[in-house]
Amino acid sequence: MEKTLRVEAPKLRAFVAGAFERVGMPAGSAATVAELMVEADLQGADGHGVFRLPQYLRRIQAGGVNLRPDIRVERERTAMALVNGDNAQGHLVMKFAAELAIRKARSAGTAWVGVRRGNHAGPASLYAKMALRSDMIGMYFAVGNANHLPPWGGLDMLLSTNPIAIAIPGLEEPPIVLDMATTVAAFGKVKTMAQRGETMPEGWMVDRDGKPLTDPKRMDEGFLLPIGGYKGYGLALVFGILAGTLNGAAMGREVVDFNHDDATPTNTGQAILAIDIGAFEDPEVFKRRIDTLARDIRGSQRMKGVERIWLPGEQSHAKYRERLENGVLIPPALLASLNKLAGNLGIGALQ
Amino acid sequence: MEKTLRVEAPKLRAFVAGAFERVGMPAGSAATVAELMVEADLQGADGHGVFRLPQYLRRIQAGGVNLRPDIRVERERTAMALVNGDNAQGHLVMKFAAELAIRKARSAGTAWVGVRRGNHAGPASLYAKMALRSDMIGMYFAVGNANHLPPWGGLDMLLSTNPIAIAIPGLEEPPIVLDMATTVAAFGKVKTMAQRGETMPEGWMVDRDGKPLTDPKRMDEGFLLPIGGYKGYGLALVFGILAGTLNGAAMGREVVDFNHDDATPTNTGQAILAIDIGAFEDPEVFKRRIDTLARDIRGSQRMKGVERIWLPGEQSHAKYRERLENGVLIPPALLASLNKLAGNLGIGALQ
Repeated sequence: MEKTLRVEAPKLRAFVAGAFERVGMPAGSAATVAELMVEADLQGADGHGVFRLPQYLRRIQAGGVNLRPDIRVERERTAMALVNGDNAQGHLVMKFAAELAIRKARSAGTAWVGVRRGNHAGPASLYAKMALRSDMIGMYFAVGNANHLPPWGGLDMLLSTNPIAIAIPGLEEPPIVLDMATTVAAFGKVKTMAQRGETMPEGWMVDRDGKPLTDPKRMDEGFLLPIGGYKGYGLALVFGILAGTLNGAAMGREVVDFNHDDATPTNTGQAILAIDIGAFEDPEVFKRRIDTLARDIRGSQRMKGVERIWLPGEQSHAKYRERLENGVLIPPALLASLNKLAGNLGIGALQ
Repeated sequence: MEKTLRVEAPKLRAFVAGAFERVGMPAGSAATVAELMVEADLQGADGHGVFRLPQYLRRIQAGGVNLRPDIRVERERTAMALVNGDNAQGHLVMKFAAELAIRKARSAGTAWVGVRRGNHAGPASLYAKMALRSDMIGMYFAVGNANHLPPWGGLDMLLSTNPIAIAIPGLEEPPIVLDMATTVAAFGKVKTMAQRGETMPEGWMVDRDGKPLTDPKRMDEGFLLPIGGYKGYGLALVFGILAGTLNGAAMGREVVDFNHDDATPTNTGQAILAIDIGAFEDPEVFKRRIDTLARDIRGSQRMKGVERIWLPGEQSHAKYRERLENGVLIPPALLASLNKLAGNLGIGALQ
């Protein structure tokens, strides 16, 4: 078995940006997208970083993404905005939306920014976390780019894994960052496992007869299971309405399966909420409370056989530091696909 | 076996209000609390309506609730407020907070109001739904009033079932209302089953050895399980931070178990977010979209043996209409406890 490669973040960023530029994306945009994608890899969101590059480029080359977009505010009030992403690469739209929410929250206390005509933007936590450096709490909702979830009791895949991310700063402790699909597993994880030739645990997916499906290569024959049964179905639905329907973005039957269609605009919907902690409390006092809570939880009594109790985002934070130091993990299959891509584009191989 | 009684809503409201007045609550407040409690029963939240009356009164009589509170805004910006509930009955505080959020959202587009020094306020959906009649979406978070959930992998019950409710209006369709605990079952449901002498399904609770606990009378020997394992733990934690820590309300170790302590102020934290649909889109257009989505889901293909696909809140909506017509259900054990209470207070029996 070939070894998983380590690639340093700056090198990976340059490779990704170079690839985007090669297909016609302006250099500034390419750098921004590359930075956010590598950020995803650093924090351990392996299904949402450079892994997505071949698909993103295929989509751009099929004309499915607008490379010269006019990302703009369509509607606005003191504490909200509706952003039209003009079918740009999703990262550019969401960065715009998150920065706007943060700016508005600084005076209004909180602000909600919705996005329509966006695209896939990587892991949810990327945007929730943008609020942290402004001493804010960030909350992000998105409509997934393919429906893999039927309503509870149903067979028609009308819903996606619609995720939520919430990022909350600590003082000395790492931020608490919850980033989760409303299904037991995210579809990105299934795809990563398929690429690695791994087997899924039971409970992630079932086939149309309701029987467990554990071979990720058969993913198109079944659907993901929601967390907590009807509760996860309910969460996927309401988060999808908040991120999609409210913004005039695709939801339900309108969702374009971007795994099987590279050309039709996805009209992806997302939403970000920023809460300015300083409006409620001295941020340092708040962050100290978070530290206390995190330490109470980490130090609490463990079940037999459990080595450590983790806070949400803690493992990701540790990965981030480790990978920033030692490089992002590029498994053999991914390296092969990236180098093949580089060959096709006529740019240098990653390694 | 004795029959479950039907009591008409106005009669039940008068009984509840009379009981609160008898222990010293001003008539206006008593009427408000009674209305919200009976509203909970009408919508089928049986563990959160009149069922709670004996406990609420016990708490008031023990001096644990302030009957002459000064519910006030402590901090405020355009799109946020922090409300000090002054240890009032929770319903009064949350009604104040929800109305404030709706008022602010009407101009700012969205508004977030946090509560500290509140108390148990009944089912989460009551307050999320208050936004509906203003053509708004409501979202509610709360810290539960007793810790029954350990962190994932742990044994110390540092977290409550911290619920979320989201209410979204339809045009001809009933509103979509998700109201869920972040545990597989809410503790209120466990208590209702204990009172009824029923057995819980496996998967709701485990004992300290991780073995299934199905006798609700043994509830104090075990703990509730979160939905989706570590995901539900994460949701309980972050919703608790949003509703509790951010407002300077109790969270984690600070939570007062109101089942075993009637006197200590609970410093309950809650939060409500109101989103004015009209800031994003013509509300009628939005509500039509919700109708389409709801109908697509309801009409979609069902799994074998499934009679109907439900939208979140649809069964509750049907119960509401039915109970408004035919009366609230009062099981024999509850009737006995209410009539005993009436005897002790020197007011007329319910029936």
